[in-house]
Amino acid sequence: MDSNSIVQTRTFTFAEPPDELQLECDAKLGPITVAYETYGKLNDKKDNAILICHALSGDAHVAGRHSPDDKKPGWWDNMVGDGKGFDTSKYYVICSNILGSCYGTTGPTSIDPKTNKSYGVLFPIITVADMVNVQAKLLDNLGIEKLLCVAGGSLGGMQVMEWAISYPDRVCSSMVIASTARQSPQAIAFDAVGRNAITSDTEWNSGDYHLKNKQPAKGLSIARMIGHITYLSDESMHEKFGRRLQEKVEYGYDFTHDFQIESYLAYKGSQFVQRFDANSYLYITKALDYFDLVQKHGSLKNAFANVKAKFLIISFSSDWLYPPYQSKEIVRALLDNGKQITYCEIQSSYGHDAFLLEVDEMTKIITNYLKKV
Amino acid sequence: MDSNSIVQTRTFTFAEPPDELQLECDAKLGPITVAYETYGKLNDKKDNAILICHALSGDAHVAGRHSPDDKKPGWWDNMVGDGKGFDTSKYYVICSNILGSCYGTTGPTSIDPKTNKSYGVLFPIITVADMVNVQAKLLDNLGIEKLLCVAGGSLGGMQVMEWAISYPDRVCSSMVIASTARQSPQAIAFDAVGRNAITSDTEWNSGDYHLKNKQPAKGLSIARMIGHITYLSDESMHEKFGRRLQEKVEYGYDFTHDFQIESYLAYKGSQFVQRFDANSYLYITKALDYFDLVQKHGSLKNAFANVKAKFLIISFSSDWLYPPYQSKEIVRALLDNGKQITYCEIQSSYGHDAFLLEVDEMTKIITNYLKKV
Repeated sequence: MDSNSIVQTRTFTFAEPPDELQLECDAKLGPITVAYETYGKLNDKKDNAILICHALSGDAHVAGRHSPDDKKPGWWDNMVGDGKGFDTSKYYVICSNILGSCYGTTGPTSIDPKTNKSYGVLFPIITVADMVNVQAKLLDNLGIEKLLCVAGGSLGGMQVMEWAISYPDRVCSSMVIASTARQSPQAIAFDAVGRNAITSDTEWNSGDYHLKNKQPAKGLSIARMIGHITYLSDESMHEKFGRRLQEKVEYGYDFTHDFQIESYLAYKGSQFVQRFDANSYLYITKALDYFDLVQKHGSLKNAFANVKAKFLIISFSSDWLYPPYQSKEIVRALLDNGKQITYCEIQSSYGHDAFLLEVDEMTKIITNYLKKV
Repeated sequence: MDSNSIVQTRTFTFAEPPDELQLECDAKLGPITVAYETYGKLNDKKDNAILICHALSGDAHVAGRHSPDDKKPGWWDNMVGDGKGFDTSKYYVICSNILGSCYGTTGPTSIDPKTNKSYGVLFPIITVADMVNVQAKLLDNLGIEKLLCVAGGSLGGMQVMEWAISYPDRVCSSMVIASTARQSPQAIAFDAVGRNAITSDTEWNSGDYHLKNKQPAKGLSIARMIGHITYLSDESMHEKFGRRLQEKVEYGYDFTHDFQIESYLAYKGSQFVQRFDANSYLYITKALDYFDLVQKHGSLKNAFANVKAKFLIISFSSDWLYPPYQSKEIVRALLDNGKQITYCEIQSSYGHDAFLLEVDEMTKIITNYLKKV
């Protein structure tokens, strides 16, 4: 398959009452629909499956196009396809939209069968472990017992670690890219301010904005702008925007946008509002903030004690959301357990976004790594 | 004087129409009132005056108390007083509230004589150079021709540079602390999102909230929270808060505050709304964003070509708002001009806030520096 291949999002529904899924928060949830896509072919031995886990605002649509008119291919199309890092001529690649999101998998925009209305903030708080448990049910349904690899960046990397820990017998290898074993207080702080911006927007309406067919657009846009600053780096902002003015030759001496960086953020914010749900943003950032393998397992060494998978850890030098030192904490904990581990810190000015942009470096590393697995 | 000394804020008014002050944006402004405080005594030669320039949310009240009941002394009381870094038994210390602020100096909350209402967003856009020109008028009024030293951190440091450049004959020495010669795109980005949060708040009411005697409290609070994240550091957040929960033993699995860092930011946000004006926040952050000595003078070397003052530049290792490399750009430009310059990078985990917290280190450096001047 290539960037122009037509792919379809499929769905799988499970956990029909009374067999709801037990969540980490103690609540039960069901039915649960999972939206997913697959690329390449599952071989007869069923041992060439790779699960890709997406980040905060991603979806199941990793590669190819949904229709010939699609302007853009999937979000990691430069990494997934025939001859690419995740080579679909060899591997069967699966990606599903995470629990709590708004791209086909059950989340706060879904209809609560108990009320026949959108869940809104009555949706239970979900965690990375819950997301992974849903993915495991999907794999059961696809008849895949063991994954050749689970890979993901950022929140995706958290899911990868959770997979290796919760399902040690189902994972041969794990790729944790630009991620962390526990959300730092600084990362929590940014998320908290973003959530505050959403819930402070009067259009949020205590989470019931769906009734009015509206979004807390201003709040969600601000949350996204904050997010974007953390995805870039001081260096990449200097390179990409500097202090260049936006369609002006001199300062406007007013409160319109003077600088390109201002227009860029405003544009990214307004774009995001068109494609993402504000409540999903609340739930998923909460899952990020709750992610803490140290607290959950007593120590990071304990967390990885029973994993059987090999690990590839990749960090990026200018990523200040999940800086390289946080990847090194994971490396150390795995080494302390005598696990097989490869660590690469890629020199990049792109900040956290590097995991979506440093395609050449990553392709080399991932291609070689998968050959050995 | 010491922390319990009672000090008074005084005011000076000038630029009465038709002699309004010419601003950089081309508008004229008048009358202008400046709120200021002084500490220590001006000697007969009038050569022991030190001007302290405050940062974004500061005021003229640097040290001592306004009344015996005051809970806290001034914002830099640990640095200003008898025997302290800025030793008031030797020096005559002056600090004035900056133009555009809300602590007694003319700003958007002031009454526009043309309309008899608060200026609101009809207040002209002001720059760091305008702030400094107002301070110069105050010094004229106080009969001080030449300053032994101008000192300030952050936005205060920008004013210091502007002083040395615009009034080369009036400044013996300059202390630029935790500052930059030009606001970086990342710093602009944070300011822009903060302004966006304020103007997105429906209570902002196009800047006319004074009519309703209200504040865009939610928006201003979000702007302040964003600011606070940039004043701390990843390291100081780990030290100060870590992932500790706020009055909980386990996750709440809801959208109340789970983490101490969340409560801290919310508290800081709500406190700020009680003491600061939202429009002033818009104006002062705009002045920060417009500050660019490179653009204004063609190059940083040009900017400092005619300064006569000696320079002390201090940066803090973990300050990521105005990182040490930005101080080093100033150092380099001064050295290229053959100016007398001392540079200190203080090792600190406090981030940008270090200029208010690293009292011992700074006292040593500043005391010694002033002795030599």
